[in-house]
Amino acid sequence: MLPEDELVELIRRVAGTGDDVVCGIGDDAAVLEGGLVVCCDMLVDGVHFDLGGSTAHAVGARAAAANLSDLAAMAARPLCLLAALGLPPGFDRAQQLSQGLASHGVPLAGGDLSRAPVLTVSVTAVGHAPRPVLRSGGRPGDLLAVTGRLGGQAVAGYTAAVTPRLAEGQRLAGIAHAMIDLSDGIASDAGRLARASGCGARVLLERLPRAPGASIEQAAVGGEDYELLVALPRSQPLPDWLTEVGELTADGEVLLLDGDGVARDLAGWDHFR
Amino acid sequence: MLPEDELVELIRRVAGTGDDVVCGIGDDAAVLEGGLVVCCDMLVDGVHFDLGGSTAHAVGARAAAANLSDLAAMAARPLCLLAALGLPPGFDRAQQLSQGLASHGVPLAGGDLSRAPVLTVSVTAVGHAPRPVLRSGGRPGDLLAVTGRLGGQAVAGYTAAVTPRLAEGQRLAGIAHAMIDLSDGIASDAGRLARASGCGARVLLERLPRAPGASIEQAAVGGEDYELLVALPRSQPLPDWLTEVGELTADGEVLLLDGDGVARDLAGWDHFR
Repeated sequence: MLPEDELVELIRRVAGTGDDVVCGIGDDAAVLEGGLVVCCDMLVDGVHFDLGGSTAHAVGARAAAANLSDLAAMAARPLCLLAALGLPPGFDRAQQLSQGLASHGVPLAGGDLSRAPVLTVSVTAVGHAPRPVLRSGGRPGDLLAVTGRLGGQAVAGYTAAVTPRLAEGQRLAGIAHAMIDLSDGIASDAGRLARASGCGARVLLERLPRAPGASIEQAAVGGEDYELLVALPRSQPLPDWLTEVGELTADGEVLLLDGDGVARDLAGWDHFR
Repeated sequence: MLPEDELVELIRRVAGTGDDVVCGIGDDAAVLEGGLVVCCDMLVDGVHFDLGGSTAHAVGARAAAANLSDLAAMAARPLCLLAALGLPPGFDRAQQLSQGLASHGVPLAGGDLSRAPVLTVSVTAVGHAPRPVLRSGGRPGDLLAVTGRLGGQAVAGYTAAVTPRLAEGQRLAGIAHAMIDLSDGIASDAGRLARASGCGARVLLERLPRAPGASIEQAAVGGEDYELLVALPRSQPLPDWLTEVGELTADGEVLLLDGDGVARDLAGWDHFR
C-alpha cells in the first residue's frame, strides 16, 4: 500500500479537469466557481474511532467536525452537511448518530444509507467562501501561526469533543496567505502547506501552544486537534487568538527545530502506515 | 433494523434546518439557494458490488453513475465529484478506481482516503439546476413516463455499464412536475414520488419498456437501471424518448396493475431487508 500523500498524487493525475473547478484535489476542500467550497471525509469504526468505547452521538459530532474544520481552513461559511452512513448489522443508534452530525448547528440536508461490515460515516460539507484561502498561497518569510492548543486529543485518547474553528477561519479571509487544518499533526501538515506553497518551513517545537498535559511530541504529531495553521504576512499585527510557531522559508526544507535549533525527525499520522 | 424509508424519516426529524437549504432529506439530492444541487451515495463491497467479480474501474464508474443519476433526476448539470474511499488492506487498484470515477467526464475535484475492512466508495456529486425538479411537484392526473428500458441490470446480474440520464434530465427542467431516478425499481420508486407529491399512482406493468430478456418482475423490481421516472402534465406532447407507464391519482394508493387491471404486490429492493 502506498502512503496517503502518494495515493492522493496518483488519484490527482487521473482526476480530470473542468471549467467549474477552481481548486481541486490537494487542498482541504475543492473550490468551485462562485466561491462554493465542498469537501468530504470518511470515518471508519476501528480506524478513526472505537464504537465500543464511544457514543454514536460523539462519532457523528466528530465526523461533522472533521469536515467543518476543512471548511474553516478555506475561510468558508458552512451551508449544509450530507452524510452517507454504512450501518453494520443490528446497529440501532442512527438517531443518536444523526443528532451528533447535526450538533454543530449546520443542517444535515441529505445523504444515503447502506449496510456495511462496520460503522462507516462519510460526511460531505458544503460551504461558501467569497475569498477562499488555499494551502498554496504562502510566501517565503510569512510567519506560521496556529489557533488554540495542540496535543489535547492525544492526551484524551482522541475522545475529546472537537470545535471546528469556523469563526476564526472566516476572520482570516483576505488576511491569510495560506491555511490548513491540523488533522494529522503540525509535523506533517506544516510540510503539506509549505510544499503546496513551493516553500520550505521552520517550526519551533518549543513555541507550540500545548494543551494541558501534552508533551511536545503529542503537540507536534498527536493529530486530530483540528486547529488551524495559517501563513500570514509579517505586515499584519497578529491577532491575540493566534500563536506564532515558525515561518515559511525560501528553501525547500521543512524543519522541526528544538530549543537548541536542532532539527527533529517527527512524522505525522498516516492511516496507511 | 428499520427499513430504509423509516430510517430516512427518523434522520429527517433530527436533521435541522437552515436558510440556505431549499430542499433537504427525502429527495434525490439537496437543493441549496442559487440552484446548487448536492447528493451522496455509498457503495460497499459485498452489498452493492462484488470486487472479486468486477474490475475496480467498473466499481468507480458505477459509483459515479449512481450519483450523477441523482443529479439527472433534479434536472441538474454536474459540476464535479468528490470521492471518499475506504480501502481494504493490500488494495492496489486506486488508480483504476479513480479512472472509473472520472469516466463520465465529470472531474473528480477532491476526496478522502481511509483504511476500511472492505472497499467502500462514497461519492458526492455537485451540480447546478436553474430550475430543479423535485419529487414532490406531481399532481393528480399527471402521466408517469420513463426513459430507456427497465430490468437490464437484473438480467445482467447488476454488472452492466450505467449511463446516467443527464441530458434527458436537463431537458425536462421547466416541463416535468416531478422526477426520481429508478435506483430501487419502479415498484418502490413510483411510490416514493407519489407519496412525496401527496398523490397515489397507477403503474401499468405491461406498459413498462423492458430490456432484452427482462421479465415484467425484473423491469418492475430489479432495480439499479438508473432510468428516470417523471410526472408530466398531459398538456405537453410526450417526447419520443419517454414511454408512458401510468399516472398519478388523487387517492393515496400506489397500484401496480397487470394486463387484467389486477393489482400486483411487488416490493422494490431495500438494503436493510
